[in-house]
Amino acid sequence: MENNARKTLPDFDQADFFPGLVWLLGAGPGDPGLMTLHGLSAIQRADVIVYDALVDQRILEWAAPNAILEYAGKRGGKPSAKQRDISLRLIELAQSGKRVLRLKGGDPFVFGRGGEEAQTLVQAGVAIRLTPGISAGIGGLAYAGIPITHRDVNQSVTFVTGHDQNGLAPSAVDWNALAKGSPVIVLYMAIKHIEQISSALLAGGKSASTPVAVVRNATRPDMEVLETTLGSAAVDIAESGFAAPAIICVGDVVQLRQVIDWSGQLRGEAPRNLDPLGTRAISDVS
Amino acid sequence: MENNARKTLPDFDQADFFPGLVWLLGAGPGDPGLMTLHGLSAIQRADVIVYDALVDQRILEWAAPNAILEYAGKRGGKPSAKQRDISLRLIELAQSGKRVLRLKGGDPFVFGRGGEEAQTLVQAGVAIRLTPGISAGIGGLAYAGIPITHRDVNQSVTFVTGHDQNGLAPSAVDWNALAKGSPVIVLYMAIKHIEQISSALLAGGKSASTPVAVVRNATRPDMEVLETTLGSAAVDIAESGFAAPAIICVGDVVQLRQVIDWSGQLRGEAPRNLDPLGTRAISDVS
Repeated sequence: MENNARKTLPDFDQADFFPGLVWLLGAGPGDPGLMTLHGLSAIQRADVIVYDALVDQRILEWAAPNAILEYAGKRGGKPSAKQRDISLRLIELAQSGKRVLRLKGGDPFVFGRGGEEAQTLVQAGVAIRLTPGISAGIGGLAYAGIPITHRDVNQSVTFVTGHDQNGLAPSAVDWNALAKGSPVIVLYMAIKHIEQISSALLAGGKSASTPVAVVRNATRPDMEVLETTLGSAAVDIAESGFAAPAIICVGDVVQLRQVIDWSGQLRGEAPRNLDPLGTRAISDVS
Repeated sequence: MENNARKTLPDFDQADFFPGLVWLLGAGPGDPGLMTLHGLSAIQRADVIVYDALVDQRILEWAAPNAILEYAGKRGGKPSAKQRDISLRLIELAQSGKRVLRLKGGDPFVFGRGGEEAQTLVQAGVAIRLTPGISAGIGGLAYAGIPITHRDVNQSVTFVTGHDQNGLAPSAVDWNALAKGSPVIVLYMAIKHIEQISSALLAGGKSASTPVAVVRNATRPDMEVLETTLGSAAVDIAESGFAAPAIICVGDVVQLRQVIDWSGQLRGEAPRNLDPLGTRAISDVS
C-alpha cells in the first residue's frame, strides 16, 4: 500500500454535458480538494466558465485549454456584474450552443442565488443541471474543528445570511425566535452587521458568554480562526481586522474546537482540552 | 472540445495519509459523483475502510485491491454496531499502524456523530483528519429541484434531526420557536416521527398549507419525491409507503421544484409552472 493516490479518475456515471446546457455548480469553500467528481468533470468539459469572486484560482486551472473563463463577481474594487446581466449572458452563451458552466463559490443553494439563476434559465427555455458544493457553513467549520451538530449540544442548527439583497442587515429574520429556538446559529456574510446581529441575539435571550468562532478564508491555506463570545464578538472582530469572506458560528459546539482542531494538531499543537463540554469521562468511549 | 472528461485527476494538494491516522470522511448523499477529490484520494489510499449503512456500494469499489472493508452500520435487520465498539475498533486499527478511513454517509458533522467520534479518537491520542461531504439536506434537495434558500422566501434555514439518540422524537427542540422563526425547515431522519413533528409545527403556528417535499434515496437513480403539505404530510407519507432514508423540506422553497426540477426536465418533462412563487414576471430577468 502506498501513500500516493492513483492519478486516474475512477469509474462513475459522468453526467451528460451537451451543447446549450448551463451546468450550475458549487465550487466549495476554497480548498480545491473539496471539489466533487461531477464538478471536476464539468470543469474539464466546459466551453465557457462564468465564475464568481469566491472561486479559487487553482480550480479554474483545470479548465480545458480552449475554454473561455468569464469573471462575474465583485472583487478588489471592480464593479459587480448585475444579476440580470449574468443571467442574460448565460442565456446568450447557451443559445449560441456552448457548454456553459456557471461556477459559484460554496453551495449555490445556500444564500447563493442558485435557485434564482436556475429559474431564469428555465424561463428562457435553457436546459440546466444543478450540482451542489460543500457549503462553508458546514465544511469550513469542520476544517476549523467545529462540528455544527453534537448530540450533547443541539438537535437543530440554523443558517442565517448576514445581509439582505440591498446589503443591509437581514430584515425578515425573527431574531427573538432564533435566539430561543436555535442552539447553534451559523452566520454567512455577517461580518459587516455583526454588531446589530449579536445585539439582536442578546436581546432575544442568548447569553453574552455563548461561544462564537469566526472562520476567515475557511479551508484555504491562510485560514484564520477567532474565538470569542457573543457579548464580545463585535468588538473582537473589529479589533482583529477580520474581513470577509468569513463564517461565524454561535453556540456551544464552538468549544469542541478545543479538542478536535485537527489541522492544528497535524501541525504539532496539543489539544487544549480533551473534554470541553464536560459531558463524558475521557475513559468513557461511548 | 469533446464531451468526454479526461480520465486523469488534476493537480491538487493531496492531504497526507500516514499510518496511524484516522481520516473521517463524508461520502455524500449517494451519487458517487458527489464525492470530493480529497475523499477519492483517501479511499484509494486507505488500508482499512470502516463504513456506514448509507455509503453507496459503488464508492467502496474505488478502494485499493488490498484494502479491508469493515461494515459498521445497521441495515436490513443486521444488528447495529454500537458507537462505543466502532470507536474502540478505530482506535485499535490506528494503533496497529493502519491508514484508517472512517466513511460516513452525507456529512459527518450534520447529525452524523462525526464530532463525537473525532473527540474520542483525540482522547485516545490518535491523529485525525476531517473532510466534509455533501449533506443530503442541501445536495439531495438540489437534486430534487429545491434550493433551500431563495431571497424571496427566506433569510434563514433550519436543519432538525427527526429523532434523538434513543430513537424518540427530538426532545430538546423548541417547535414553537422554530415554527415562528424558521421559514424553511429541513428534517433529517424524520419519517418515523413525522406525525408528531408536523403536529408540533402546526401547533406552533405554521399553516397547514405550507408546502412539504419528501425526498427518498436523494441523488440516487431510484430517487423519489413526494410533494404534499404540512397538514397532509403524515397521512401522505404513510399512504405512499415512503421509508428511510429520506429528507423532508418544509417551506415555500418547495414550490420552486415546479420550475427547476432539472432532472425531470432532462428526462423530457416540461416545467409545471414558470413562476410558482409569483414574484417575478417571466420576462423580468433580474
